[in-house]
Amino acid sequence: MSHRAAPEHTHPDDVPLLTALAALADPVRMRLVRELAGAEDWSRACGSFDVHVRKAALSHHFTVLRGAGLVEQRDDGARRFNRLRRGEFDARFPGLLELVLRGD
Amino acid sequence: MSHRAAPEHTHPDDVPLLTALAALADPVRMRLVRELAGAEDWSRACGSFDVHVRKAALSHHFTVLRGAGLVEQRDDGARRFNRLRRGEFDARFPGLLELVLRGD
Repeated sequence: MSHRAAPEHTHPDDVPLLTALAALADPVRMRLVRELAGAEDWSRACGSFDVHVRKAALSHHFTVLRGAGLVEQRDDGARRFNRLRRGEFDARFPGLLELVLRGD
Repeated sequence: MSHRAAPEHTHPDDVPLLTALAALADPVRMRLVRELAGAEDWSRACGSFDVHVRKAALSHHFTVLRGAGLVEQRDDGARRFNRLRRGEFDARFPGLLELVLRGD
């Protein structure tokens, strides 16, 4: 049994543009978003990403992504699974995810 | 006569997406970009914007905007005038300026 509180989410409709831009303007978070975009919903646990940051930092990055309406999370036992909120985020900020996902 | 060095510019084509996002993810710089979008090219001097920051901070913000390919500047005596590089930036990052300029 996990003793963590369930993650709190912010719907993209409630996210200011500044918050969305700041969430994406970070190399680790951009990487997380890109990897999530290439994966099936709920297939990726938080520890499965190819980023080299400590657990506390990774947890912070996911908090920022949730707060920007980019990621939805749910716990399954000790693991926390993710999906990119692609449709909702696209509806709120058309074209922004596309820029991030096209590479540079 | 101005003793300042002429401002250095970065063309949007040479700007990484992370740099563009970070430049726009700031309330003062977003305000500067929005005001510039509503003004004729070269009509706005640096001191003419409705932002409440010290001169050194404002100078830093314009440096960031130049470095992100968002703003072009040229000096006329003691004043430095600005234009938004709308066409070039749009070509490099389609839709990004539109999100910023539509308001929130």
